[in-house]
Amino acid sequence: MKLATLRTGAQTTTAALAVGPDAYLPLPAGDVGALLRDPAWREVARETAARAARSAVVQAAAGDLAPLLPQAGKVICCGLNYADHIREMGRELPEYPTLFAKFADTLAGAADEVVVHGSERVDWEAELAVVVGGTLTRADEAEAAAAIAGYTVANDVSMRDWQNRTLQWFQGKAFDATTPVGPVMATPDEVGGANVEVRGYVNGELVQRGHTSTLVFGPARLLAYISRFTTLRPGDLVLTGTPGGVGMGMTPPRFLADGDVITTEIDGIGRLENRVSIRQPALQD
Amino acid sequence: MKLATLRTGAQTTTAALAVGPDAYLPLPAGDVGALLRDPAWREVARETAARAARSAVVQAAAGDLAPLLPQAGKVICCGLNYADHIREMGRELPEYPTLFAKFADTLAGAADEVVVHGSERVDWEAELAVVVGGTLTRADEAEAAAAIAGYTVANDVSMRDWQNRTLQWFQGKAFDATTPVGPVMATPDEVGGANVEVRGYVNGELVQRGHTSTLVFGPARLLAYISRFTTLRPGDLVLTGTPGGVGMGMTPPRFLADGDVITTEIDGIGRLENRVSIRQPALQD
Repeated sequence: MKLATLRTGAQTTTAALAVGPDAYLPLPAGDVGALLRDPAWREVARETAARAARSAVVQAAAGDLAPLLPQAGKVICCGLNYADHIREMGRELPEYPTLFAKFADTLAGAADEVVVHGSERVDWEAELAVVVGGTLTRADEAEAAAAIAGYTVANDVSMRDWQNRTLQWFQGKAFDATTPVGPVMATPDEVGGANVEVRGYVNGELVQRGHTSTLVFGPARLLAYISRFTTLRPGDLVLTGTPGGVGMGMTPPRFLADGDVITTEIDGIGRLENRVSIRQPALQD
Repeated sequence: MKLATLRTGAQTTTAALAVGPDAYLPLPAGDVGALLRDPAWREVARETAARAARSAVVQAAAGDLAPLLPQAGKVICCGLNYADHIREMGRELPEYPTLFAKFADTLAGAADEVVVHGSERVDWEAELAVVVGGTLTRADEAEAAAAIAGYTVANDVSMRDWQNRTLQWFQGKAFDATTPVGPVMATPDEVGGANVEVRGYVNGELVQRGHTSTLVFGPARLLAYISRFTTLRPGDLVLTGTPGGVGMGMTPPRFLADGDVITTEIDGIGRLENRVSIRQPALQD
């Protein structure tokens, strides 16, 4: 099952079940997060599909894809999580996941233009993201695994100049509408339990390729760990980290230019394609 | 004018105007954040006060104080912000504010027990916090100053073991219900434009004392800076950092024990008093 959040008018979104290329059945929920708050969401989706008339199918353009979870209560990201990338950087495997937060305002749609004001070092980070489908407080890994609603694709676009102004990355990671996420949430059965390859492209050139089998902290372990300090709820989103190949790590470093297109892809889920627009700020920093 | 968020039943809160010691007038809003989303909130509060019958006054016990902004969309904190403390540590004054995020779930009421699961290094951080009353996107300092609804007291209780597990502080700063905030939001006229002394006590002993005149990034500058990358909205909360005197900085370091009481106080706003309960987790980390 694949679910999307569609724009159906100004500021309005509705959850939808993907039933074909760009074809969706509207579901009785404002967005995927709202749908997931109904414990019977799987049945709701199945019954909608079974009973829907052919005429109910909506053809959606790429621009109709809203951020998958526009109202996510928590967006938590893991850094430094691909073992092969960590080893190639000559570092030790970490004992604990490096975590930081974003807000729902940071998210963008799967085909949205990513508009950045006032950064000269805009970088890409292709990632698998986990959509939480249950409530987790101090959960063990089995409970966490059972509470995974599905998986989606994200690009943790990072403003490296802002990220490295201080020791805390947050300000370079939380620019409004700069983290595209979608196009759909695929339930675990669609993606073999998230045993997948994550690929990132810049203007069609493959720059990142990593396999989630090399994650130090896999999805369930990450959710269980986070739930030790904060409750995860339906519609929360956890980004699992990016493999090697980011621009900052290149020699010389390479950053996105105004007009560049970043593509982020995971087989079985889908693809993000985002033009990047870099604008200078009206005011001084 | 001083506003609080009161518990009026299980899970229910309402915004209230403080009219005397522990005496409040209920306002037509679920909490202070919901009230602030009405641009006419000052008039709503004034008219309620003018028209209210004496019988409308509610006497509230300390335990009735909910987290001031239980639904805050953004809680953003500044670290390393008191010049005297930075200089006494032998560091340079920073060019940019060090920022990190919390979620609304991290907040606690002014007299709530702060229950921590699975940390052995629980520390205190008395702080002035700013309540956002307008919408700020790439604002200048004058716009930011005009959008300050008021000020409140917070204690950014920090789990130093978790905070220092990785380079990113977030996990040690985002334990559920561990950042008490309140008891009220005082409008700027009540606190001389937030030119105030912040004091922290442990079991009645004064451990922190700092004056906001020594903040490197004052409230308006902080809000303007944050608004360069993310939109601030009514009901968002910004913590301005803590002065010297935290437990981690003592020789030897001192951490909170189960049953300790932390008090956080700012003249003109009020006082938080929180018993700390430290529990071992049921599961391994």
